[in-house]
Amino acid sequence: MGRAHSNAYRQVSSFYDLPYTVEQSILCGRNADNLAAMAYRWGWRETSSDWRDVVSRPDIDIIDVAVPNNLHAEIAIAAARAGKIVFCEKPLANSVTDSATMRDAAAARPNMVWFNYRRVPAVQQLRAMIDSNRLGPIFHYRGFYLQEWGNDPSRPPNWKTDKSIAGSGVLGDLMSHSLDLALYLNGPIASVQALQRTFAPGREIDDATLVLAQFANGSIGTFEATRYATGCKNRNALEIHGEFGAARFDLEDMNRLEFLDATQPKDEQGFRNLLVSANRYWKPGHIVGYEHTFISALGDFLIALANKEPFEPNFEDGYRVQLAIDAIQRAASTGSTVQIQ
Amino acid sequence: MGRAHSNAYRQVSSFYDLPYTVEQSILCGRNADNLAAMAYRWGWRETSSDWRDVVSRPDIDIIDVAVPNNLHAEIAIAAARAGKIVFCEKPLANSVTDSATMRDAAAARPNMVWFNYRRVPAVQQLRAMIDSNRLGPIFHYRGFYLQEWGNDPSRPPNWKTDKSIAGSGVLGDLMSHSLDLALYLNGPIASVQALQRTFAPGREIDDATLVLAQFANGSIGTFEATRYATGCKNRNALEIHGEFGAARFDLEDMNRLEFLDATQPKDEQGFRNLLVSANRYWKPGHIVGYEHTFISALGDFLIALANKEPFEPNFEDGYRVQLAIDAIQRAASTGSTVQIQ
Amino acid sequence: MGRAHSNAYRQVSSFYDLPYTVEQSILCGRNADNLAAMAYRWGWRETSSDWRDVVSRPDIDIIDVAVPNNLHAEIAIAAARAGKIVFCEKPLANSVTDSATMRDAAAARPNMVWFNYRRVPAVQQLRAMIDSNRLGPIFHYRGFYLQEWGNDPSRPPNWKTDKSIAGSGVLGDLMSHSLDLALYLNGPIASVQALQRTFAPGREIDDATLVLAQFANGSIGTFEATRYATGCKNRNALEIHGEFGAARFDLEDMNRLEFLDATQPKDEQGFRNLLVSANRYWKPGHIVGYEHTFISALGDFLIALANKEPFEPNFEDGYRVQLAIDAIQRAASTGSTVQIQ
Amino acid sequence: MGRAHSNAYRQVSSFYDLPYTVEQSILCGRNADNLAAMAYRWGWRETSSDWRDVVSRPDIDIIDVAVPNNLHAEIAIAAARAGKIVFCEKPLANSVTDSATMRDAAAARPNMVWFNYRRVPAVQQLRAMIDSNRLGPIFHYRGFYLQEWGNDPSRPPNWKTDKSIAGSGVLGDLMSHSLDLALYLNGPIASVQALQRTFAPGREIDDATLVLAQFANGSIGTFEATRYATGCKNRNALEIHGEFGAARFDLEDMNRLEFLDATQPKDEQGFRNLLVSANRYWKPGHIVGYEHTFISALGDFLIALANKEPFEPNFEDGYRVQLAIDAIQRAASTGSTVQIQ
Repeated sequence: MGRAHSNAYRQVSSFYDLPYTVEQSILCGRNADNLAAMAYRWGWRETSSDWRDVVSRPDIDIIDVAVPNNLHAEIAIAAARAGKIVFCEKPLANSVTDSATMRDAAAARPNMVWFNYRRVPAVQQLRAMIDSNRLGPIFHYRGFYLQEWGNDPSRPPNWKTDKSIAGSGVLGDLMSHSLDLALYLNGPIASVQALQRTFAPGREIDDATLVLAQFANGSIGTFEATRYATGCKNRNALEIHGEFGAARFDLEDMNRLEFLDATQPKDEQGFRNLLVSANRYWKPGHIVGYEHTFISALGDFLIALANKEPFEPNFEDGYRVQLAIDAIQRAASTGSTVQIQ
Repeated sequence: MGRAHSNAYRQVSSFYDLPYTVEQSILCGRNADNLAAMAYRWGWRETSSDWRDVVSRPDIDIIDVAVPNNLHAEIAIAAARAGKIVFCEKPLANSVTDSATMRDAAAARPNMVWFNYRRVPAVQQLRAMIDSNRLGPIFHYRGFYLQEWGNDPSRPPNWKTDKSIAGSGVLGDLMSHSLDLALYLNGPIASVQALQRTFAPGREIDDATLVLAQFANGSIGTFEATRYATGCKNRNALEIHGEFGAARFDLEDMNRLEFLDATQPKDEQGFRNLLVSANRYWKPGHIVGYEHTFISALGDFLIALANKEPFEPNFEDGYRVQLAIDAIQRAASTGSTVQIQ
Repeated sequence: MGRAHSNAYRQVSSFYDLPYTVEQSILCGRNADNLAAMAYRWGWRETSSDWRDVVSRPDIDIIDVAVPNNLHAEIAIAAARAGKIVFCEKPLANSVTDSATMRDAAAARPNMVWFNYRRVPAVQQLRAMIDSNRLGPIFHYRGFYLQEWGNDPSRPPNWKTDKSIAGSGVLGDLMSHSLDLALYLNGPIASVQALQRTFAPGREIDDATLVLAQFANGSIGTFEATRYATGCKNRNALEIHGEFGAARFDLEDMNRLEFLDATQPKDEQGFRNLLVSANRYWKPGHIVGYEHTFISALGDFLIALANKEPFEPNFEDGYRVQLAIDAIQRAASTGSTVQIQ
Repeated sequence: MGRAHSNAYRQVSSFYDLPYTVEQSILCGRNADNLAAMAYRWGWRETSSDWRDVVSRPDIDIIDVAVPNNLHAEIAIAAARAGKIVFCEKPLANSVTDSATMRDAAAARPNMVWFNYRRVPAVQQLRAMIDSNRLGPIFHYRGFYLQEWGNDPSRPPNWKTDKSIAGSGVLGDLMSHSLDLALYLNGPIASVQALQRTFAPGREIDDATLVLAQFANGSIGTFEATRYATGCKNRNALEIHGEFGAARFDLEDMNRLEFLDATQPKDEQGFRNLLVSANRYWKPGHIVGYEHTFISALGDFLIALANKEPFEPNFEDGYRVQLAIDAIQRAASTGSTVQIQ
């Protein structure tokens, strides 16, 4: 994630009119050799292998936590207590308790959790359509995050498959994105049922997680995340059906939003393929990519900061996703419905 | 369904080389006026409003039961006991007990349940690919049957929304097809969790049913059926991911099978769009429609009958779907996992 | 084509309320053995190997000419002069002169040329949209008919690759359909440029024909027909762009019409995928196939006949397509623009 | 184009291991106010409004010409004669003569014409497949560049619709890209027929250009460029059919390549949807956008420069496209076939 974050800091001022000068002060990490090369490549002025030192420096305004999940809490809390604005990768933490502590510690200042897919232009347009009631009361929600690399025996294990570090498998890594998008687009989840499965022998984390959900707004939904969906490189997809319309999105076709307007005459109703690529970047029809979600998240945060306006997704959003993750784990282990407070 | 069945009897001899002459003897129903018109239009020689009389006639070989669900058992059992070959619409019955009795009563002769979507050419090709291990060990199965007409307030209630007749809502009407295809393609289901929802005020039946499933082969799956999926006219779709490949099908694109071969070089792996339209009917690339699934089911049955070979889907298959339906209803009412025997 | 035509006669009364009883009187052909089997399979009462005899019989009302192209004229003219209603396969003839003679001979009675793709439900809906000005003034038209079987060396030559019989290659066989649809949807063609190519050694007919066209309405277009478009089984596709909207159709997805409404707000404009399957046959969302275009052409003809209303496409339409074919051949041979009278 | 070029210089070192340090020395333009703001936003050290002065500076190695078409020749020639490496936007010039002079002037050093779409990852993969004969001998080529903004009356005229500046309309602006891709993928064009049309009253340039082409390799093709293709924001698409396979690409789905392998068993042949996003940037399945084509063109140029290897597309490629443009204009004005030398 260091590359995508670095790129965002490097690029944001070219696409946003900011009242701030973004300075890429310090790149912090454990391997000094790699650090220097990466800092050079991505324009960081200094490097450090001591995060505590960085957190205590007075010339730093923002600390961006992009380390393995089990290290999020300690660093983010220390940074927040040192008076920094804190950004943190998702999932916010490996437990509800840690998430709550992080949220509370960071509450004095604006903060951000990197649920970057909220900033896909098509997702932004979908949210605007929902806000203006183009979909009407919602009946169904579907959220998928399907990858295939679990099914590649040539791939070495990494920290994402180590339970003591990652906390969970696809639930925290992939489904956390789907849950955040669902909360963003369709509101709170009231209860869940779940099924988890580890396909690889010897692994402890979930290779696949399936969920049935009841939303507070009366709609129902399914979620599915897996690293064993052969043929799916990065299918972060969602579908939502309401009384007045329906919509679909798939990150593999990131510049597309499919929208159906159920208020049109019956024989003219069909999913329409909208090319949505954000005017901020290039001309209409000139598509944007993965990295623009990070640039937009950062840019929107800085604009909100300057305007003293609230920003989402923040640590409170990260905490709410953690509540859902926790409920899903309990539901999967009991095979029964679990309410979310 | 009377039209689709009538059409199959009328058409089967044009597309199949049969050792039988198909005679459309009697069209049986309750409304004498409608019956006569329909019999004339579809080539039935006689009409009758007394099914018991028809069942007892010695010149009849096959009884085809295409009445509301709650009437299936009595007629099918009587016909079987009268020595007839029996065909029955799906779901086979409104209870496991009735299904078992029907299965046992009909067991002396070949029989058929009209899970016609097994005969979609693309589904046939998919099954053949699975049989030759092109998909390898299966990880994931997904079955959807999404319609939208529940969301149309101008539509009058009919027997399909009357619980005393239909037994269930989308579970028996739509998901039964998805369950049968899953059993056909991926084998027995071991356990289920489920969530059901009635959206329309005053209705008793399920407008939507969601299911998480564990299959006996170690794969896991989701099922979803609804009449409130705005934008979906008849999306009877499935997706299956295995170690060596993956496949997708959607009845709205009935002549297409999407297939991914995961044994190809990585950079040449992608879902490929196969146009599958059955050589039996027209030239390649000339597509077939809904009705051909009925013609093929009937034709295959008659060929199997002549060859004294087993035919599927039969009442045993209908019974197995009923077991799943029953388990799903119990799972939904308890919110907990239910094993299927 | 005998099968598709036979099927239409056999099926039309089931789907249309006709004031006529359709009697399948005589199947006429050259091979007595095949004829008998085919007549039995498709419900023809008699067979004959002498078309002159059939044409002279007083108990026959309609003569349907579905023989190789070079035989169309003689039979159709004889049938017309014998007072019969005449149907004829496309292209109407192998020359403008023959087409004109056929048109004149048949003019006393309603007649039909089997440009069956006008009866695709999606094409019907597109024409209705054009008639109600949903597309506005037209800028561009594109018509493709792409097949691949020319590229199959295992395939034996047949009459379609014999110039003395077929008259032309893909121009008459495939592009005639595209031209008829263009005339139907976008009006007369004023001039053409063309390029033809024979890929197979030793063949005389065109394996591929490319055309640039100016339409009388001010729009411009391209046409392409080939039997060497690897990957295309039967891509009979068209696209049309107007000031107020655009539309696309592809016979391989026969139940789909893509439509874009350019009068909607800019950010909601996208091609929408309409599922168009004709209410006459099955329920919405239950798709129809190749054969329904023949059934609908026949049914519409018979309804028009009963109502003494004009029917299209008729021999006049066949003649107009012949004018375009003739102009394209002259343009291809000179490499220069040819006006169509 | 200034933004896309600036972005490439700013980003190339993050994604390429270069033996050079890229310095963004001078941004040159006519409007001093805009220049300063843009230089600040995109990281240019200096600004200048005198291109002659810039061209003569000894501390500049590369001159990148991104001005209106009619100014290309003078600046590029001066820069080349001053010993600079020259990059130039497309089309290279407004005449064959100017193109030839530019090519000759720049020949002493490596140079580049910004046909950036050669660097789309999917196009790169397609070229590699063609090089390894995966498509076999080619039969058909199709190149489209369809936009819709000509049909927007609210849009003010700009230099792209002024013939004295742009030289041509869509032919130079859009079809030049299609022609370059065709030459890159399918080799030289031997002859053309063409049709041009101006839809907007009072305009002199071509709003639409249609072409039929014969390639030197025996294949035939069509090209179409227009700004009146309602519904098409940026459909730069191509399709190619060979004996062993076929492929399709559309810039609106820039991360996709459709490929059909005609050597597979017949019933497993279908266009497969390859997600191609370049490993250089992000993880597989994480898509890239418009700007990456510029970054990759620049990065590949610099690597080739360091390795003293040839680079394409260069001014010779720009000249060859100009030959085709010139032939198309003559063909359109005469309505007859024009050979390309």
